[in-house]
Amino acid sequence: MSAPTKGVILIGDGLADRAVPALDGRTPLEVADTPTLDQIAAEGECGQMDPIGPGIRAGSDTSHLAILGYDPFEVYTGRGPFEALGIGMEVKGGDICFRCNFASLDGELQMTAGEFTGAKIVDRRAQRISEGTRELAAVVDGMTIDDVTCYVKESVEHRAALVMRGPGLGAQVSDVDPHDADMPPHAAVGDNDASQKTARVLNQFVLRSWELLRDHPVNRDRITQGKLPANIILPRGAGVAPDLKPFAERHGIPGACVVETGLIAGIGRYLDMTVPEVPGATGGLDTDELALAKAVVDMLQSHEFVLCNLKAPDLGGHDSDPQSKVLAARKFDNLARWVLENAPADLHLAITSDHCTPIVFGDHTGDTVPLAIRGPAVRPDSVRSFDERAVVGGALVRIRGFDLMPILTNLMGVQEKFGA
Amino acid sequence: MSAPTKGVILIGDGLADRAVPALDGRTPLEVADTPTLDQIAAEGECGQMDPIGPGIRAGSDTSHLAILGYDPFEVYTGRGPFEALGIGMEVKGGDICFRCNFASLDGELQMTAGEFTGAKIVDRRAQRISEGTRELAAVVDGMTIDDVTCYVKESVEHRAALVMRGPGLGAQVSDVDPHDADMPPHAAVGDNDASQKTARVLNQFVLRSWELLRDHPVNRDRITQGKLPANIILPRGAGVAPDLKPFAERHGIPGACVVETGLIAGIGRYLDMTVPEVPGATGGLDTDELALAKAVVDMLQSHEFVLCNLKAPDLGGHDSDPQSKVLAARKFDNLARWVLENAPADLHLAITSDHCTPIVFGDHTGDTVPLAIRGPAVRPDSVRSFDERAVVGGALVRIRGFDLMPILTNLMGVQEKFGA
Repeated sequence: MSAPTKGVILIGDGLADRAVPALDGRTPLEVADTPTLDQIAAEGECGQMDPIGPGIRAGSDTSHLAILGYDPFEVYTGRGPFEALGIGMEVKGGDICFRCNFASLDGELQMTAGEFTGAKIVDRRAQRISEGTRELAAVVDGMTIDDVTCYVKESVEHRAALVMRGPGLGAQVSDVDPHDADMPPHAAVGDNDASQKTARVLNQFVLRSWELLRDHPVNRDRITQGKLPANIILPRGAGVAPDLKPFAERHGIPGACVVETGLIAGIGRYLDMTVPEVPGATGGLDTDELALAKAVVDMLQSHEFVLCNLKAPDLGGHDSDPQSKVLAARKFDNLARWVLENAPADLHLAITSDHCTPIVFGDHTGDTVPLAIRGPAVRPDSVRSFDERAVVGGALVRIRGFDLMPILTNLMGVQEKFGA
Repeated sequence: MSAPTKGVILIGDGLADRAVPALDGRTPLEVADTPTLDQIAAEGECGQMDPIGPGIRAGSDTSHLAILGYDPFEVYTGRGPFEALGIGMEVKGGDICFRCNFASLDGELQMTAGEFTGAKIVDRRAQRISEGTRELAAVVDGMTIDDVTCYVKESVEHRAALVMRGPGLGAQVSDVDPHDADMPPHAAVGDNDASQKTARVLNQFVLRSWELLRDHPVNRDRITQGKLPANIILPRGAGVAPDLKPFAERHGIPGACVVETGLIAGIGRYLDMTVPEVPGATGGLDTDELALAKAVVDMLQSHEFVLCNLKAPDLGGHDSDPQSKVLAARKFDNLARWVLENAPADLHLAITSDHCTPIVFGDHTGDTVPLAIRGPAVRPDSVRSFDERAVVGGALVRIRGFDLMPILTNLMGVQEKFGA
């Protein structure tokens, strides 16, 4: 029996595209000079991949979960837990997670007969506050209410996340955020015993957030400057963090994530994968793609599997900038070349994208993405280059993101047999 | 970001086929001159579709449910509800529906100790009675028993449907129809409290149907003519009408069904879609296909999505008449041409079939059907004509009917993102 080999998945974030009029109806991958990607396609097996399923518009979180072998229809329990992961918070299975706004409240807030009274929301977004939210989050972060700890971290502008950790909590809780101004916050209500406990803690958290923030120096300064204070936190969209098997347990091999964005790093940590710091990785078009490539090869010394995500291509898609995306495709090619030249010769290397971010659409779409896998165990097909249309007719035909890890661990020779 | 576009699915009912010896081994679609279908294939993405799943023989009801985005394995709870829809009855979620026969009973029917006694079924089909069933159904239709209303409508020959509407009913009920003659009807039995209520109502309904039909003028006439009376209704095959999300809620856009058959019109109404009357639509080979096309374009003014079904191709399949099917394929091409020429230029247009009805088989089969989608967001592939074999190798590869709506709403730019 041949020895097991190592495996790598390189993901060009949002790299796949549709026909771009400014590129004479071609896609950035069709236009960009990508000799390494083409070599991998020519020497490997190719096909189309539906990150989630045919036509389904994937988020980066749902698609990376699928590509790492976790069915997003089963494990994706709402944005809360993944928003919190995305801004670098620690999240554990069973945590109750909320999306939050810093908001502006006028009046003397109190709880009377189970309702918030005495004050009204003036602005649900505190005039889209852009500075000082880190300081404001710090004073409420770590608050304990009964046996529950509340972790808070700021995100961009007025946004933040709240993670509740403690025994016996449920996620069937109504929003405190009334989604409108000129009224008091809504008192949270729970649908069952566990969620009623969450609601009690949540309402106390909101009340105490106001008590701690109302006279905070950041808010005193804002009032002096004629701005509205960001003096209350309004949670919404409760979701329970799913209990996921760690990657190593799910697939029987240790894995690492070499990535640039907080959201995907958070998913990696959530699955107990190694997530190294990569100096020079900026998440932008100026990122040092060779630093990422070196981190991949470095991680391969101690891990059987490495996933690497290059964020740059997605930016050109969201910005509808074809030239940026063509440059990013070149960077992805550079990254792949360095890995190919420096990883073990018997590596099984997959190159793909987590979703389309078409130039003409400016956001994620549900089209297929191209996929190629190179390595000693594959049966090379007739595809000779790597782009959306060239891979049609390849041996991998059309698979789902969720199918990729079984296909790869099979080629690597590390998968348990199902049956006798 | 590009603006949302509208979407249309044109379905040639039973249009797909197998090799026909009388057509030198070709299929009707391969033989018929269909320049518009070929143009759509050449300018679009093509592939094969399994209406339900690989090899599964689809009914028109299950395949249209799947194509409209409802998983038939989940929502298809038996023929009862869809038979009732198919003959034009109103059916609501939670209704208990039965297929029924008008039958001939001899004796004085009564209920004794929970069993039907005193009479025997002479003919389960009342000699396949062909006239007068509308009058017979009318006298039992609308009967109320306790808080339950029973709606009855005749179908073809001895067939009819019964729809029970009322609180607390279940569908785990045994058949009253004993599926054999020379014995009394079986008293229905329920498997649980709700179904026991259904059984009680059902047994009373059967007894009262006999009381109301035994001396009905239609039956007095039949007896005078030496025929058996159709003097009892025998229900079987209980099914609960599923609670389906309306189409607009399921997909976030309003939809219309331009169709010719009662069954598919019933499905459209069940999903709260607009189902216009189309003068000239006969459901036969003589149908006015341009009237259907005009209705499609008309509906597009107020709806984001329109499904249109042309019944004609299915008839030639069931009748094993190749020339009829070739003509019907031409009609489908005409329909598509008018839509293409008169709908908005940025329309996303899918052409396909709901199932094969092969000439040589004379009924539905589970083969794949061809599919092509044309519109500004697609990545055209190398397929140049529209038929069962030409689409092999297209970029859509092989999808299920259930995948078509996500694929289409993705291209239309109207689908919510799954994840962040």
